[in-house]
Amino acid sequence: MAKNLIQSFESGRVYGKQQKNVLIVYAHPEPKSFNGALMRKAVETLEADGHRVEVSDLYAMHFDPVCGRTDIVGSLRDESFFKYQMETKSAWENGTLSDDIKVEMEKLKRADLVIFQFPLYWFTVPAIMKGWIDRVYVMGFAYGKGKLYSDGPLKGKRAMLSFTTGGPNIAYGDAGMNGDMNVVLWPLQNGMLRFVGFDVMAPQIHYAPAHVSDDDRKQWLDDWGKRLNNIFEEPSLKFVDFSNFTNTKLSDKYVEGESSKKYGPTLGQNLGKLFSPTGMLKP
Amino acid sequence: MAKNLIQSFESGRVYGKQQKNVLIVYAHPEPKSFNGALMRKAVETLEADGHRVEVSDLYAMHFDPVCGRTDIVGSLRDESFFKYQMETKSAWENGTLSDDIKVEMEKLKRADLVIFQFPLYWFTVPAIMKGWIDRVYVMGFAYGKGKLYSDGPLKGKRAMLSFTTGGPNIAYGDAGMNGDMNVVLWPLQNGMLRFVGFDVMAPQIHYAPAHVSDDDRKQWLDDWGKRLNNIFEEPSLKFVDFSNFTNTKLSDKYVEGESSKKYGPTLGQNLGKLFSPTGMLKP
Repeated sequence: MAKNLIQSFESGRVYGKQQKNVLIVYAHPEPKSFNGALMRKAVETLEADGHRVEVSDLYAMHFDPVCGRTDIVGSLRDESFFKYQMETKSAWENGTLSDDIKVEMEKLKRADLVIFQFPLYWFTVPAIMKGWIDRVYVMGFAYGKGKLYSDGPLKGKRAMLSFTTGGPNIAYGDAGMNGDMNVVLWPLQNGMLRFVGFDVMAPQIHYAPAHVSDDDRKQWLDDWGKRLNNIFEEPSLKFVDFSNFTNTKLSDKYVEGESSKKYGPTLGQNLGKLFSPTGMLKP
Repeated sequence: MAKNLIQSFESGRVYGKQQKNVLIVYAHPEPKSFNGALMRKAVETLEADGHRVEVSDLYAMHFDPVCGRTDIVGSLRDESFFKYQMETKSAWENGTLSDDIKVEMEKLKRADLVIFQFPLYWFTVPAIMKGWIDRVYVMGFAYGKGKLYSDGPLKGKRAMLSFTTGGPNIAYGDAGMNGDMNVVLWPLQNGMLRFVGFDVMAPQIHYAPAHVSDDDRKQWLDDWGKRLNNIFEEPSLKFVDFSNFTNTKLSDKYVEGESSKKYGPTLGQNLGKLFSPTGMLKP
């Protein structure tokens, strides 16, 4: 801790800033990639600011992304009909999940901020990262009956997508051939991050880094570092509080309160209205 | 062929209906699951109608979902900096992709219709199926410069998502806690299916099958079979023709032509307007 305070002081940051734990879940097969550079920049910056950083380098770990029978050590509750969700919930309660899942769960429990660093593959995370979600987000641990969204078990923690694309920014506009990035991000940010309780930070998107100069990429890395210097002070994206849902949909009262508004409350809960052009991109 | 015509005759279907090839990419670890039943119903129905059906049962095949170095047999173009997209494109051209990818490519080439059968995990496909996409959709084979969307290499083929959810239908409405299913499906249907050229069929969605009676599930299976009887006559979902994009966005002329319309042309290309409440669900 003393070392961290000194580091903070030396790097010119506010003295005595609270130390946080950061987990970076990183998926790229090539360390020399721009994703690799972004991951290392995050580690350097956050450590220099006095935070503790752990990296789950999924390729280097040979992380197994396939959820299945071997995620449970020992016998199943029902050997005759394998129900992954129920079996892993039970295994979590009994401490019989496979070790590689337990290790990631401990990292997640410690983390105040989780950064997912990846190249966008087919408009979502690469399979190896999808498997991290599929396997580590065990029922009971990451979500449960009535424990969803703003009441999810991971509430109080922050999470952020940091990714690169092949296509340019314009291809992800509301007239772009790949479609509005807001729409692309809803299932990821609402479904993979908010669902379990995270406060979702605006995504860090680097469009088509392969098509810019070395100088531009250096500038992007610097900008990324500067953003991370203040990441614990940044406001998060807006979602509807879970208390407004009754039987899995917005209460009549809530909907009534929205009636005069131009935009739907979120892109997903759009109430058949226009949606905010920045809802998934800016707080 | 003669056998197929007889089969068609015996099953009471229109005599002489054209035989098609169907690929079912199936991802569920438990054969007794409702997903398993849906897969088998599709095989039975389509075969009875005289079509040829292949199933890629990803769990049974122990399909490896992680794209990486071993997807290329022999040396790389550049051993010092691994670029997956370029290396696999080159390996495809040279016939040096790993055998498990080649086999799936041949199935895809033969197929007139591809059905993806899966449980919705975290608002998208399970990791093992995401890996099938990540690895089989090799640049050059499935997409390329100017060969995208309606001009994609897989044009002329049909594809469909058939999946189950944990939550009820209402949770996926425009006031639902999980958000509008149209929004959830955009990245999958535009990004994973349309992107490579498929005509995208309306999704077959079974909401919360674990929470209905055996009789209901039997009815659902029957309805699924009936839909498949006419699947090659069904209209597909509407997307913007690729010729309307200039430099990755809709041409000014196209946008002008849309100016008086209430809805944006698609959910992704929404032009800041309202989007159709059924755009990703119905033709």
